[in-house]
Parts: sequence; C-alpha cells; structure tokens
Amino acid sequence: MRRAVYTGDRTVTVEDCACVPPGRGQVRIEVAYTGICGTDLHILHGAMDNRVSTPAVIGHEMSGRIAEVGPGVEGWAVGDRVTVMPLDWCGRCPACRAGHSHICHNLNFVGIDSAGSMQSSWTVPERLLVRLPDGLPLARAALVEPTAVAVHDVRRGQVRAGEKVIVVGGGPVGLLVASVASAASADVLVLELDERRREVASRIGLNTMDPTAEDVAQRVEEWTAGAGADVAFEVSGSASGIASATDVLAVRGRLVMVAIHSVPREVNLFRLFWRELTILGARVYEREDFERAAELVATGQVPAAELISRIVPLDDVASAFAALDSGGEVKVLIDCQGSGRG
Amino acid sequence: MRRAVYTGDRTVTVEDCACVPPGRGQVRIEVAYTGICGTDLHILHGAMDNRVSTPAVIGHEMSGRIAEVGPGVEGWAVGDRVTVMPLDWCGRCPACRAGHSHICHNLNFVGIDSAGSMQSSWTVPERLLVRLPDGLPLARAALVEPTAVAVHDVRRGQVRAGEKVIVVGGGPVGLLVASVASAASADVLVLELDERRREVASRIGLNTMDPTAEDVAQRVEEWTAGAGADVAFEVSGSASGIASATDVLAVRGRLVMVAIHSVPREVNLFRLFWRELTILGARVYEREDFERAAELVATGQVPAAELISRIVPLDDVASAFAALDSGGEVKVLIDCQGSGRG
Repeated sequence: MRRAVYTGDRTVTVEDCACVPPGRGQVRIEVAYTGICGTDLHILHGAMDNRVSTPAVIGHEMSGRIAEVGPGVEGWAVGDRVTVMPLDWCGRCPACRAGHSHICHNLNFVGIDSAGSMQSSWTVPERLLVRLPDGLPLARAALVEPTAVAVHDVRRGQVRAGEKVIVVGGGPVGLLVASVASAASADVLVLELDERRREVASRIGLNTMDPTAEDVAQRVEEWTAGAGADVAFEVSGSASGIASATDVLAVRGRLVMVAIHSVPREVNLFRLFWRELTILGARVYEREDFERAAELVATGQVPAAELISRIVPLDDVASAFAALDSGGEVKVLIDCQGSGRG
Repeated sequence: MRRAVYTGDRTVTVEDCACVPPGRGQVRIEVAYTGICGTDLHILHGAMDNRVSTPAVIGHEMSGRIAEVGPGVEGWAVGDRVTVMPLDWCGRCPACRAGHSHICHNLNFVGIDSAGSMQSSWTVPERLLVRLPDGLPLARAALVEPTAVAVHDVRRGQVRAGEKVIVVGGGPVGLLVASVASAASADVLVLELDERRREVASRIGLNTMDPTAEDVAQRVEEWTAGAGADVAFEVSGSASGIASATDVLAVRGRLVMVAIHSVPREVNLFRLFWRELTILGARVYEREDFERAAELVATGQVPAAELISRIVPLDDVASAFAALDSGGEVKVLIDCQGSGRG
C-alpha cells in the first residue's frame, strides 16, 4: 500500500508501507478517494503543528470499500461501500454526558489527531463507519463529510422553507452550505469576491453578488422588502464578512459562524441588541447530519459532481496541494486507488 | 401638577404645568414612583441627545393609580393600580408582522422617544397599561419594568432549573437577572468588582465573586466539575466582561448580552466555535415578561424592597441623579406624589 505523509516544513511525501490488519471492532478500508479540506491545507502550511504530530497521515473526507473485517464486527462485509465519520469521542466528559459528543472535550478528530485517509488502505473502528447509499459514485461520496458540515450548520441556523439566507463566502464549504439551504427550500444569496467562484456558484444554480461591486445592505434591504435576511452564514473567515453578515439580518435573525476565526474579532453588539440577533457557533456534525449529507449527495440535491474541480493520483498529492494553493480550485480529490492495493 | 424636565446640558429641572386630559383610548395616571434607569442617566449625560428632543420628560419605570379615564376605554376604572409597559409599536413593519413588535422598526420607547413618567400626572394610551397585583406596594411596583427586562433576558437564555448561571456585573439589572434566574431554580454566581454591590448581592442571598481577586475560569471549572457554566449574562458593559462570560461557558452554553455595547467589541469566536456557544441579543421585553415580572415582584421572589436604596421627592430630582452618579446606590426612586396632584 501507499500513503501520503506530512513531515513538517510544508512537505508531504508518498511512501510504501504495510497494511494495518483490523483488530477487534475494526475494519480495513480500501480508500477510493480522499478530498483535501481547508484544514489539511492549514496543516501543510504548518499552522497546526502544535496539534499534529509528524510524521502524520492526514485526510478525513473519504469514500471506499471494506477490504477486511476484524473480529467482533457485525453488520459489515467485505465490499461494503462506506465513508467514515471521523470523530472519536471519549463518552465520559461533560460534553459527552450532556449528549454533545461531537464536541467532546477529548475529541479525537481522525485525520488530524490520529491517522487519516490519505492512503490506499485505512484501518478504523467500526463505530465510525457510515454506509453509502446505493448508486452513489465513490468520487462524489468523498464530499459527504464536508456536506455533513453544511448540514450541521444549516440545522444550527434552523433554516426554514422560504427564508432568506445569506452565505458570506463562496468557497467549497460556502457552496455546500448554500446548496443544503437551497435543498431546505430557502431563498439563498451567496456573497463572494472572486469571480471564478461566483461562476461556479451560478453554474450550480445559486444567486450571487459581488460585495465590492454593490452595496450589500441596500441589496438585501430590497431583496427582503426592508426586513433583512433571516439567516446568515459567515464562511469567509474575514472581519468584513462578520460585519456584512451582522448588518443585513432581520429582527431575531441568526448568524451561524461557519468559518474558524482563530483571533478574536470585533462584532457589532449594538446591532445584536437592537435586532435581538443570535450568533451560533457550529463545529463539525452529528451522525444524523452525516446520514442526511449522504442522502443529499446521493440524490444530487447537493451537486457534488459539479464541485469536484480536479482528481489527482495519490502519488501526485503534492501537486494537488499546490493546485489548491494557487487558487481557482473548488474541491480537489486524491485518487487513492491503484496505488499498490491490499 | 409638577414635572421634571431634561433641558440638555446635563440639566434637569422641575416645573409646574397643566394636566393633560385623557383623549379617546387614553387614561391619566397619578404617578406614585418613577425609578431612574441607567438609560435616564445616559440621557442626562447627553449621550442620547441625538435621539431625545428637549425639553423632555423622561422616566419609564413607574407605578401609580388611574386618575381619569378617557372615552372608549373599557375595563379600567379610577383608582386602579397600574404600571405602564412603555413600548408603543407601529404594527406594520417587518418586525411587527413577524410577531416581534417589542423590537418594532419604528418603536416609540415611551420615556425616551415620547414623554415619560417623571411627573405627578401622566396621560398614556390604555393599551400600555399593566394591572398591578393586589397588595404589591407601589414603591416596589416601580421595579416591575426593570424586572421585566430581567425576565426577558432569562427567557432568551432559556434558563432551566438546576443550571449553572454566571451573571457578569452586579448593578441593578444584574441583580434582577440573578434574582429571576434564581427564581427559575438556577444556581447563580454574580461576578462584581465593587465591594458594596457584592454586599447588596449577598444580602439578597446571591453567591458572588470578585473577578480581580480570584481566577474566574478556575472557580467556574471547580464549581461546575469541569463542564463550564450553562448560561452567562453579560451585564457589565465592559470588554473584559464579554471575555469572562465567553471563557467560562460549557459546550452549547448560551451568552445573553444584556448590557448595551455601543461600540463593536472583540469576541472570542474560536471559543464560540469550539464549544458551539450561542450569543443572544436581548432588548426590552414582551407583555408576558411584564406580567411575569409583576408576579415575581409581588411574591417577593424578586426582592425589590431590598434593591431600593433611596427615595427622593420629585422636587429634588437633581439630587437623585447626583446620588446615582456618585456611585454606591442600587435603585433610586422618585416619589412623584404630593407634588400638586390632579
């Protein structure tokens, strides 16, 4: 088998290694595709070196087939098409006891805190498996995980049919959030600076605007007949994105913070007060989000195929990261098949 | 009759004037007591001169008796003991149509945007009246309005029995929020820098801590067995208050912004993400909050009597504001009776 290894210093290399036979309660998966997440890019850039122990096999957006079933595993067979929900929680901390195990105090995010899927063969605990719907092509299935993020975000925002929804930032996650909100029959507008990204958004049927070309507040005022938007998703990661999102919300509007802001940001708390807004933190997903995501990708309500801009063989993983770095890509997948299987 | 008038330039004077006879749908109230709110103090300091047209009769925390009933008013009689919910909404804007008339786009906050209760005789629309429970002394009844703020805040925070609640700031509103949360069987801790305010809090049975003398995060960690607080109320108005409140919350914790922050503030959005926190704006109250507040004050679950630190005759209104300015007061009431009634 082959695997990609992050060794620090902005370096990812591909090497041979032996398969890990599945222990009790584990299965070994032949990985088909692994998507590259913004987090993987951050890791490669060294921004998460205090959390990631090198050498590290990263990757957590994947699809594949079960190749081997360990002792004590029931309900799964060789050949089953699966994805992995990459959260492994402790079950004992206050978060787990309160029923929020996806934000466990001791969460092992598989692919960051332990070995991930950027390899041809991957051994994981059975409890992380999610069955793929029949007929869902494996390349698209690699987008189930980021779609689950979007499903969770939309659920946190309690988006209802007919509501006016603003998505600030039209990168891969923004487009997935917009697609999931559209699937919930919301009326969605994507704010995005980059023309190429706006083109992708238009191609999948989303309304867009360039916030530098038009006055956002005025456009939303007109669009919502003076009420403001019901929900905004901040997916840009920028300070100005927060300001835009806050300024356009209706009374009792909800702002879901999707992007990770690693530094404190100024927030217009007067507007929060004046309109009784709600700001919601959202992190990863729960199992129901993951299963709903698989369904949305399988039915095409989330246009996963249109979001895959490039598929690169595992041996060329460095070029995949380079392509993402140079911009213009949406979702880049690593094809982990045919790299010395088994 | 007599009334206090804010004339700009940090000046409030008392003058004679004629009673306003109630028109159709109005009643004339003989005001008993009017409390001074932080907002009234801001007005006197000139901080709201862009909103308040001088000369202005301010005041919106009050109690009194109906003295005269205008044509078309049903269900109210001379002598009825009342308070006023000082919100007059348009009924037509997007907020009103969405059922959030308390945050009407065109809200007339009576006592700020139109004449208030710092006078011996006050004529108001019948629709603003709230009946006082039998046996509730009129001085205490003047605290129903600020208590309604607290009831609304606690309802926005969805405080449940047994939850651990932090109140950052032990001024009058903070103590009311803490009292209302305690009445909801929450376990409450008040953070307050000022020793005199902590003493008042202790006197009414609240647990307190001085955030400069102890490490807040560590104290809350111990208090909540590592989980963090379920709900925090930011009532201090300070940047550090927001930081404290954000840092001590449990997963899915709720932060209710009670204080008005007129400038944008830095918020730890990483923590918001990491623990899936919710930040809620809260503004004034709805009728159910007002009615619940009257009940809580009447039953003594909110210890209104203990929070009244001074009662000053209307003619000495300037000294009441001066006392508040000099610190050490909790709630100061203006006695509007006996100042040329009728």
